[in-house]
Amino acid sequence: MFFKKRIVVLRLGHRLQRDRRVSTHVGLVARAFGANKIVFAGIVEESVYETLKKVCEDWGDDFGVETVTNPLSFMRQCKRNGYRIVHLTMYGENIQLSNVLDRIIKENADILIVIGAEKVPAEVYKIADYNVAIGNQPHSEIAALAVFLDRLFRGEELAKEFTNARYRIVPSKRYKNVVRMGVGNES
Amino acid sequence: MFFKKRIVVLRLGHRLQRDRRVSTHVGLVARAFGANKIVFAGIVEESVYETLKKVCEDWGDDFGVETVTNPLSFMRQCKRNGYRIVHLTMYGENIQLSNVLDRIIKENADILIVIGAEKVPAEVYKIADYNVAIGNQPHSEIAALAVFLDRLFRGEELAKEFTNARYRIVPSKRYKNVVRMGVGNES
Repeated sequence: MFFKKRIVVLRLGHRLQRDRRVSTHVGLVARAFGANKIVFAGIVEESVYETLKKVCEDWGDDFGVETVTNPLSFMRQCKRNGYRIVHLTMYGENIQLSNVLDRIIKENADILIVIGAEKVPAEVYKIADYNVAIGNQPHSEIAALAVFLDRLFRGEELAKEFTNARYRIVPSKRYKNVVRMGVGNES
Repeated sequence: MFFKKRIVVLRLGHRLQRDRRVSTHVGLVARAFGANKIVFAGIVEESVYETLKKVCEDWGDDFGVETVTNPLSFMRQCKRNGYRIVHLTMYGENIQLSNVLDRIIKENADILIVIGAEKVPAEVYKIADYNVAIGNQPHSEIAALAVFLDRLFRGEELAKEFTNARYRIVPSKRYKNVVRMGVGNES
């Protein structure tokens, strides 16, 4: 792919029950759009992990799911390990109106993408190397993550083949065409 | 904007309680990424409408929110009115690996984008003029809608100015910078 560094997504502010589906979507999008790992801050329902695990088993590839209890210290630790911290927020530099994406790509570093729920601690804006807005309108952290990754990878992530999949879709104009992969089939 | 036709989003299969947040995100993404209207099939919680209404009041622009009881007949009616029906599904033609987006743009018609929940009636695949996959991996209808619109509008939707807004964000590298718009200020 065009951008070859490691991508980790940190999901802040999960609220039990209320955010169960949204956090599941965040994890699925991270995987499908080419990130290597999703990290949830705090306690997340078991069902979120189970859905992500099942999708990885069925649809393939190595994708990590983890939890941290202190997201701010996790962000600082990533920074010490050479990651650039990209916080997606409607208040940040507009990805369409600024050169922020070019600057991020030029760094050629591993990236920690941070996405929040409604309220994000002020500290996050400071620790972040880049506060990036996928437009300056309120919408969805799921959408923001997807569009950021789609632009970072220049769309190539949607053509990626996932290894070790049980199933694969043969794209179709009209039908659901799913192929069950043979045992030992690697692709 | 590059693509100037009318865009309506039809959200199928909302499940009460379970999909409350996801359907809200769908509506917010439709608005923020340049669609003109969201139509929910079936009963949706009052809180979903209230959130969307509040966002339109605060952040501007004319965005419609409606409900239909029979989504299949609504799809057929749109078709009779000259809309092209684009159903976003992981089983469809891959937007990255095919020329499906070019074909849609070339039609130069109004578009009804249909997005479902987990199970979509087979009929939808048949009524649709295009079944389009934002990648052939499972992820999120919110992400699919955002990336489809971002590609359809070539990113210009994220630079759009919303009229009649109470608030506007001044993009910032580090701070939350929100401006309260003056009375009578149109932009």
